[in-house]
Amino acid sequence: MTTTAGTIPRTMRASVLTAKQSLQMQERPVPTPAADDVLVQVRSVGVCGSDVHYYRNGRIGDFIVRDPLVLGHEVSGVVVDVGPGVSEDRVGERVAIEPQRPCRICRHCKSGRYNLCERLDFYATPPIDGALCDYVVAPTDFAHRVPDALSDHAAALLEPFSVGLWACSKAAVEPGSRVLVTGAGPIGALVSLAARSYGASEVVVTDLVASRRERILGFGATAALDPSDPAFDPESLAADAFIECSGATPALLSGLRALHGGGIAVLVGLGDEEVPLPVQLIATRELVLTGVFRYVDTWPKAIAAAQQPGTDLDALVTAEFDLEDTEAALTSDDDPASMKSVVVVSSA
Amino acid sequence: MTTTAGTIPRTMRASVLTAKQSLQMQERPVPTPAADDVLVQVRSVGVCGSDVHYYRNGRIGDFIVRDPLVLGHEVSGVVVDVGPGVSEDRVGERVAIEPQRPCRICRHCKSGRYNLCERLDFYATPPIDGALCDYVVAPTDFAHRVPDALSDHAAALLEPFSVGLWACSKAAVEPGSRVLVTGAGPIGALVSLAARSYGASEVVVTDLVASRRERILGFGATAALDPSDPAFDPESLAADAFIECSGATPALLSGLRALHGGGIAVLVGLGDEEVPLPVQLIATRELVLTGVFRYVDTWPKAIAAAQQPGTDLDALVTAEFDLEDTEAALTSDDDPASMKSVVVVSSA
Amino acid sequence: MTTTAGTIPRTMRASVLTAKQSLQMQERPVPTPAADDVLVQVRSVGVCGSDVHYYRNGRIGDFIVRDPLVLGHEVSGVVVDVGPGVSEDRVGERVAIEPQRPCRICRHCKSGRYNLCERLDFYATPPIDGALCDYVVAPTDFAHRVPDALSDHAAALLEPFSVGLWACSKAAVEPGSRVLVTGAGPIGALVSLAARSYGASEVVVTDLVASRRERILGFGATAALDPSDPAFDPESLAADAFIECSGATPALLSGLRALHGGGIAVLVGLGDEEVPLPVQLIATRELVLTGVFRYVDTWPKAIAAAQQPGTDLDALVTAEFDLEDTEAALTSDDDPASMKSVVVVSSA
Amino acid sequence: MTTTAGTIPRTMRASVLTAKQSLQMQERPVPTPAADDVLVQVRSVGVCGSDVHYYRNGRIGDFIVRDPLVLGHEVSGVVVDVGPGVSEDRVGERVAIEPQRPCRICRHCKSGRYNLCERLDFYATPPIDGALCDYVVAPTDFAHRVPDALSDHAAALLEPFSVGLWACSKAAVEPGSRVLVTGAGPIGALVSLAARSYGASEVVVTDLVASRRERILGFGATAALDPSDPAFDPESLAADAFIECSGATPALLSGLRALHGGGIAVLVGLGDEEVPLPVQLIATRELVLTGVFRYVDTWPKAIAAAQQPGTDLDALVTAEFDLEDTEAALTSDDDPASMKSVVVVSSA
Repeated sequence: MTTTAGTIPRTMRASVLTAKQSLQMQERPVPTPAADDVLVQVRSVGVCGSDVHYYRNGRIGDFIVRDPLVLGHEVSGVVVDVGPGVSEDRVGERVAIEPQRPCRICRHCKSGRYNLCERLDFYATPPIDGALCDYVVAPTDFAHRVPDALSDHAAALLEPFSVGLWACSKAAVEPGSRVLVTGAGPIGALVSLAARSYGASEVVVTDLVASRRERILGFGATAALDPSDPAFDPESLAADAFIECSGATPALLSGLRALHGGGIAVLVGLGDEEVPLPVQLIATRELVLTGVFRYVDTWPKAIAAAQQPGTDLDALVTAEFDLEDTEAALTSDDDPASMKSVVVVSSA
Repeated sequence: MTTTAGTIPRTMRASVLTAKQSLQMQERPVPTPAADDVLVQVRSVGVCGSDVHYYRNGRIGDFIVRDPLVLGHEVSGVVVDVGPGVSEDRVGERVAIEPQRPCRICRHCKSGRYNLCERLDFYATPPIDGALCDYVVAPTDFAHRVPDALSDHAAALLEPFSVGLWACSKAAVEPGSRVLVTGAGPIGALVSLAARSYGASEVVVTDLVASRRERILGFGATAALDPSDPAFDPESLAADAFIECSGATPALLSGLRALHGGGIAVLVGLGDEEVPLPVQLIATRELVLTGVFRYVDTWPKAIAAAQQPGTDLDALVTAEFDLEDTEAALTSDDDPASMKSVVVVSSA
Repeated sequence: MTTTAGTIPRTMRASVLTAKQSLQMQERPVPTPAADDVLVQVRSVGVCGSDVHYYRNGRIGDFIVRDPLVLGHEVSGVVVDVGPGVSEDRVGERVAIEPQRPCRICRHCKSGRYNLCERLDFYATPPIDGALCDYVVAPTDFAHRVPDALSDHAAALLEPFSVGLWACSKAAVEPGSRVLVTGAGPIGALVSLAARSYGASEVVVTDLVASRRERILGFGATAALDPSDPAFDPESLAADAFIECSGATPALLSGLRALHGGGIAVLVGLGDEEVPLPVQLIATRELVLTGVFRYVDTWPKAIAAAQQPGTDLDALVTAEFDLEDTEAALTSDDDPASMKSVVVVSSA
Repeated sequence: MTTTAGTIPRTMRASVLTAKQSLQMQERPVPTPAADDVLVQVRSVGVCGSDVHYYRNGRIGDFIVRDPLVLGHEVSGVVVDVGPGVSEDRVGERVAIEPQRPCRICRHCKSGRYNLCERLDFYATPPIDGALCDYVVAPTDFAHRVPDALSDHAAALLEPFSVGLWACSKAAVEPGSRVLVTGAGPIGALVSLAARSYGASEVVVTDLVASRRERILGFGATAALDPSDPAFDPESLAADAFIECSGATPALLSGLRALHGGGIAVLVGLGDEEVPLPVQLIATRELVLTGVFRYVDTWPKAIAAAQQPGTDLDALVTAEFDLEDTEAALTSDDDPASMKSVVVVSSA
């Protein structure tokens, strides 16, 4: 460490998942930034459904928590040190972290799709530690400077907002688009806001829960429908784009029927491994079905979009927790009124 | 005429360009809608720079006014009759007219680029008459129903707004885009509004006239710069997209230098036939230079975008004229405060 | 009829499907070309799997043969008359017919996707008659002039070749692409040839039948594999594109696993209405799944590609039949050596 | 150096440009591969027009040869050592080198356009040395394994062939495309071959020299025209794509007129810094004008395409020279029959 080493301690607090449903505060060494890395003092960490899933089940599909793991990948903070290849001018910058580290040399990395890199490291995905701790390292170009106009919380939420922007980009949303979003949770909300950023004029969101339908109208949705209502007819929507955010199989099936010819369906929410899909419908209407896996360089776009009128990421935050209370944060989604919980690791 | 023929007169008023700088009110037969046409009673007609150009010079490039010509191609109105192939349900609809009529069978028409159809008819382009008259015919699918939320004037201005949307589509504007627009006249304003519809976070407009720079900040521009200011440095803009709306050669040249690698330049304003362009710069930065010629099916998009907050097409209208005063309308741009003049042919 | 009416009879032969598995030769009036139509004397008609399906089952999904129907939509012929809006110069032209007739005014037609037009008529799809008869009408721009270098049979086979080209276009095949094709029947062969036209360097075809695997190597395939071989490992293919031509569910499932991240799957063969698909795989690899429904203006491309070395459409023809023997033609695929049967309605 | 260091000398021969038109054979240290580099023993080096330009003029535009410079960037060779981050399995591989080294962290690098990286190093572009010497280093992923089917010379020529493929990709060449190529020199030939790889059915090449026109017919051109012939009418070509390979201003101007509406022009040959271009034509036909600057990850594609029938890169080689005769190689284009000269640095 080159510059302000005097002010950086050698050890730090970390909230560590040691076993299924078991978190422990541990003292760990502060990491050292590699050549092209920055060291970031963590401020806000948003709690994501995948964090909750690892906490509750100890795994997500083939990703199994075998060794103690630090969760958290929605992160803002302040650069406090830099690796030898990075300008010291960055020290002191408020940043939002894009929590991935691609190999940069495979065909995917070189073609602008580094999210598909097979050697990609990602925060809080075993065995890579996340950000529910005092300090993290990140590649210098994955720590994005944020303007004063964005709060620490908003800066952390640029990560799930990036998922929404990436999904809307794949769905080719543009001015005049009619977009169907299934699921009115935090991802549905961020996708809806992203759709408006892309100019969508209609964002129809479906959800089974009335209170969530009502709430989503404040997050970009222009209409919120109950898919269990007998009067609900997906075919009549004739949507240009359909973005699935619920992980529910019936939502996926009705969404495909809601698309007009040539429409695009994007999978964001993950549910069943396999779903019986109407392949003849896909063929005869030339629908396009794809999905998003993280994102590619969406932070500049997210930072810009998050400052536009109508896009208030702070409004998603329904609860704040201290790092010591991470367990409470990870179970806070038991409350039906919960939208997005944030762990405040440090603050200005 | 099938339905309400009783209420439609056999003749109508038309403001006819009989020679350079000479307009005459004439009595003309009301046109009869062909099989797939509608007959529209004209309400508002926006005055476009090309109308003024034909009026002043009697030609635009190879398009020469040899026979008397009705000007006007920014048009709203009400459907009053339909051809035999069109449902009578359309009678009574308020519509905005897309003022072109493609052949529908050439390769361009079949590939979604009917604006490039070599047999395309276009209002107010010799020898096709425009809409500065009481009634016009249009193909049924080129008369777009407009919602009550849009005024007759706004409905007419969907035409130049369509140019802006088409330009932004070609320029691949999206959330986070930094867009340079050269020229703060009505087209610059509509392009700027369109860029915001596409999610652009920065819309930098240049114009030599201070009052125009100030005004454009109310029409989507996030900054307005004086290109004659010695401190103005196009290279520092590093724009993603550049949309030329001034027709001025220096604006085109500095705009190309304002693009970062891979940026897209779109020509909207037409000035000199030929311009000395930096071809090595285009090659070594892999810039893309293209232009717009009208638009393809942009009305649905324009209607949706024109209803979004921040997009107020009525605000562009600086003067209204009666059909009898068309000559005054065509010379109203002498007033530097003029933005968009509208001829009110009829009203509700 | 304007020009050579003297030489055109008033009635003609037609092979009519009157009930499931029942064909009848009937005397029918020769159709009259509408304004923008041409009248074509039929030469060669290829037999397609859908013709066979209608013959055997009386329906394909929701398309039910309720009234007598003429089958056949792979058609070449000679223009013998024109409608009033078409130049008489076309009389005498050898043509290949694109067997569809879109409305030309809906949003799909205007956006270059007229194959998705909801009012589209298509030969041999109830209630529209096909071409197993002496004369047919077609829109003038859907009757494509063919050069002498292409035989009547080859000209007819431009239709299924168009399906292959359209599929390869959607699959973004280009030089260097590794393409997986499942199914070595006539469609698999035409897709493989099309993939080579697009520059694919590897075209791996799978089929359960050894003789079909062997044969496909003469139609563009660079390798032919047995998917039932225990050593067959789809994951190891790392294909850029996967084009499903068998309609077999296991082929679809293994094909999706054969794609590398970001790969594109295109459904051509239709089998089960619904298939349980690995949606998490689609999402986490950002695969794209889509399908083809006919084609859009592929004849110019097909005519050009069919004349390139290595693309010999005539080589697909394994049997010829007279119009009176249509029933034999429709059952000729019982022979495992059958590739493509052609009904010779007339010849030069 | 880890493995075969015993066999690698400490110094090597290098042909060094010490001043305008002055080459010197020098003894230089063999370079050491950095962490992710390989060390390659050079075999064949193609002579490019830019090498000749630096030799004759000591500069290309703003790139000025201030210090001694090794020329040569069309390179094949054999891996003889690897940096500490690279598997030793690569030692012994025959490779073609993509002669660039991007920063991998800027926005261009991360979006799949690393050729636009502003910190990119490129062989034989001051101050970066090229390959007219015994050994060079390259990033491991920029040294592409070549199959036995490609000769050392062909492997070196994958570099200019890559330019052709990249140009055809930007020009959206596909089956059925009609392509105009201006200039029948080596780049025109490689662009023509590349266009055929992309499926172009017509490749019309123009050149003022009859012998070059005749020769190009062996390299993918389907027609070769004399642009000085009074009968030559570019407008009648109605080309889909136009690829400028001559650097001649009249060729650029006539090529733009040869494009039909919506056509794409790609600048490859560089001539004048500025050219008076028909901007109104570009706008009213919605032409697209762009250029290529090197390429992005084209070697896999080039390796595949170079093995297809009809693409024989060896056939371009008109002369071979020893490293000591580099000066003769750099002046060999004085001979009008010269197409491509190759310096044989070593051989198997």
